[in-house]
Amino acid sequence: MSDNGTPAQPLYRQIAEQIAEEIESGIRPVNSKLPSERELAEELGISRMTARAAINTLVLQGLVVRRGRIGAYVSRPKFRFDLSSPRGLHEQLKKAGVEPGAKIISAEKVLGNSVGNEIMNALAMGEQDEVYRIIRLRTANDEPIVIENSYFPAKIFPDLLDFNLTDSIYGILKKYFSITPAGSIQEMEISYLDSQWAELMGVTADLPTLEVKRYTVAEDNTPIEFAHDIYRGDRITFIARTGPTLNLGT
Amino acid sequence: MSDNGTPAQPLYRQIAEQIAEEIESGIRPVNSKLPSERELAEELGISRMTARAAINTLVLQGLVVRRGRIGAYVSRPKFRFDLSSPRGLHEQLKKAGVEPGAKIISAEKVLGNSVGNEIMNALAMGEQDEVYRIIRLRTANDEPIVIENSYFPAKIFPDLLDFNLTDSIYGILKKYFSITPAGSIQEMEISYLDSQWAELMGVTADLPTLEVKRYTVAEDNTPIEFAHDIYRGDRITFIARTGPTLNLGT
Repeated sequence: MSDNGTPAQPLYRQIAEQIAEEIESGIRPVNSKLPSERELAEELGISRMTARAAINTLVLQGLVVRRGRIGAYVSRPKFRFDLSSPRGLHEQLKKAGVEPGAKIISAEKVLGNSVGNEIMNALAMGEQDEVYRIIRLRTANDEPIVIENSYFPAKIFPDLLDFNLTDSIYGILKKYFSITPAGSIQEMEISYLDSQWAELMGVTADLPTLEVKRYTVAEDNTPIEFAHDIYRGDRITFIARTGPTLNLGT
Repeated sequence: MSDNGTPAQPLYRQIAEQIAEEIESGIRPVNSKLPSERELAEELGISRMTARAAINTLVLQGLVVRRGRIGAYVSRPKFRFDLSSPRGLHEQLKKAGVEPGAKIISAEKVLGNSVGNEIMNALAMGEQDEVYRIIRLRTANDEPIVIENSYFPAKIFPDLLDFNLTDSIYGILKKYFSITPAGSIQEMEISYLDSQWAELMGVTADLPTLEVKRYTVAEDNTPIEFAHDIYRGDRITFIARTGPTLNLGT
């Protein structure tokens, strides 16, 4: 604590901030290698734990990425996803000049009673109603950023699985079913990846993630999608807005 | 992977879900003790690592809380904070029947040049302009949930520090300065607590947190607040909404 009672910036944060400044100023360019924890500790006369905490902070800030045991490298900035926008991730990435991609992990038609009450309630469907379950690994500039588990009522979107699901699914809903996602509630929590998902994402399982549950309705308030998405905590910043459109901070 | 290519639910998630059901059905009531990792491992014939992963999952879901080395206990449900609402945390907690509280960690008047460019830009202020920096530990039913670092321009809110800052600060802005927070952008990322903040929060430093940067404007679009908040990842669910008011999922 400093004299006036304000907790002082802890050492690892000071070190992380200094490295962050070196990254932002270009002294440490994208893809350049950071000193190892041991090197950093020796160089600055700090403990390895403090060096690790500093690098962890940079990883979570999205400024640095670990590549296996080789070391830590300067990364690209985090992708931003505006949760208050009616635009989906695909459209938002494109608008930011980032190439969106998707790999289908699985796509199947199942009955309500096999997806559980939470999803049946979210989609206002019964146990014998059919639902499409689509799992996709979504990428930004070929980098995996989210595993998306989406559920769509088969009654509303017959033969949805026949379309090219590596495209924007919202785009398909609009173009072929004339249904526009008009409103959503998204619930966000911190979670961890299990090792299977982590492998799909190409990250380690101890990376914290942002889990999002999304309830989407059409213009007439019909539920059209329930999704359970798992975002990489080191690659995404979520934005939420209230009130008038603002030109601040972004 | 199951036959159709869908990754099967991993074991630790299955176990976490079963315990979650026991909590939700009331078989395991609030404050009851969970089996230890060792007991759970022996009981179910699983590894201790799997048992730990299951309990970690429950902790991050907010269903279970660790109390030092004694063990894990069934917790209260997470608090929900709707980022799309114009209401602040204080008002939202009250509306949900939860008692909001705040402890002042520090409150001071400083110059722009001591808070850095990010905050000066956010508040459209100069190096010689004065700004109030208020750090509060905010609680819900006496439980610490967020450390809030708020900055308010002194020019707009003279003598702000003379008010009772354990109340809702937005309430003070409205009542005594006739200024209503009308819009905000909030940026959310995952981060970690340092040990000093963790101690203030009463949690361990390895708990992932949700860092939120908030840019708030008044009705005439004047910046009135910049805040950098650190929420406990195990006690909070964020909500974001788009489109028409929905009655889904909440």
